Amino acid sequence: MVKKLETVQLPKATAKRLPLYYRYLKTLEDSGVKRIKSKEFSALTQVPSTTIRRDFSHFGELGRSGYGYDVDHVIEVFDQILNVNKLTKVAIVGVGNLGKALLANNFRRDENLKIACGFEKDEAQCGEVLSGIPIYSIDEMAEIIQEEGINTAISTVPSQYSQEAIDSLVAAGVTAILNFAPGRVSAPPEVDIRYIDLTTELLTLIYFNEHLREKVEI
Amino acid sequence: MVKKLETVQLPKATAKRLPLYYRYLKTLEDSGVKRIKSKEFSALTQVPSTTIRRDFSHFGELGRSGYGYDVDHVIEVFDQILNVNKLTKVAIVGVGNLGKALLANNFRRDENLKIACGFEKDEAQCGEVLSGIPIYSIDEMAEIIQEEGINTAISTVPSQYSQEAIDSLVAAGVTAILNFAPGRVSAPPEVDIRYIDLTTELLTLIYFNEHLREKVEI
Repeated sequence: MVKKLETVQLPKATAKRLPLYYRYLKTLEDSGVKRIKSKEFSALTQVPSTTIRRDFSHFGELGRSGYGYDVDHVIEVFDQILNVNKLTKVAIVGVGNLGKALLANNFRRDENLKIACGFEKDEAQCGEVLSGIPIYSIDEMAEIIQEEGINTAISTVPSQYSQEAIDSLVAAGVTAILNFAPGRVSAPPEVDIRYIDLTTELLTLIYFNEHLREKVEI
Repeated sequence: MVKKLETVQLPKATAKRLPLYYRYLKTLEDSGVKRIKSKEFSALTQVPSTTIRRDFSHFGELGRSGYGYDVDHVIEVFDQILNVNKLTKVAIVGVGNLGKALLANNFRRDENLKIACGFEKDEAQCGEVLSGIPIYSIDEMAEIIQEEGINTAISTVPSQYSQEAIDSLVAAGVTAILNFAPGRVSAPPEVDIRYIDLTTELLTLIYFNEHLREKVEI
């Protein structure tokens, strides 16, 4: 019995793993795999099988003991949860080195994500088309973002201009922002910001590698 | 009374927040701030003040009720924990768009992290110097990495070559790898790998933004 999805209450840690599970399930589907046991799925995702079983149990009985999970069915359930069967258009602010790298890659491994436009403070770059994506000036942001129906953006703007960039995005109606500048910025409560802080990621990695292997439960 | 640091047992979630705390404390120190209360530190880091107090309590009595934390002292304690008072040299594998962006940035905001060399499969790029950093061929990796005394690396190699790149790094003696290809690779147990998966980050962001605001404890 699969639970009615609108009643599903997910722990945050489970919610965070869903996109990862989903990507691996899609890879399995692409490879023609029809069912998978939690231990096999664990080997693939490197999430402990007990965690997988507990996470999946939030959605009702997705699998049967000794049989495993039906890949197509789990994908169907996650499709509804993640609402990924639709294209999400994304704007990018800042087309320096990192911005150009993201434009060139453009989430090509995920058909539901597509960077649709870029914005740049440097007027010399406005009007250009980079990796097939038009770059506009910040002044045009509100108009373009509303025309395109975009509410998701990535900011690669350096820290000192980060708040300014986020303010422009929020004013244009964006509610979900992936920010590559690590300094916390302020935004209204309805706006979600996730920070990609490579320095902290690297420090954490080094710290775990050097000191924590035996001390911390991983 | 500050606990003897070798006896400190940290929950993983606390350990993961230390580098973030550390960076903000250094910013406060740079700005001449001598003491800070958990609520003020919460406003800065956007970590709940109860979490900050609980995290800090693992290190003994770092602060006093009503007074707050002495910034210099907490930094001193974290310095010992994070062992950040030394330079960590980092190697990068793959100098495409993303690799070039990382070389150009080179953790310039953190004096203890420095990309020292790059490796690239494309022979045309080997022998070049990008953003002041020499690029070598993969064949030279073991020699250079041992000469430089490097055990930390970043891989920006595309997914299909990711395992190969990680194998070369491990063979050269690297034990800590930040991997920008999301597919899980295998490595010996003494090697720590952290994955930066921008697609999953973006899907998680969109998912939280659209569906989870009221359902999930953030």
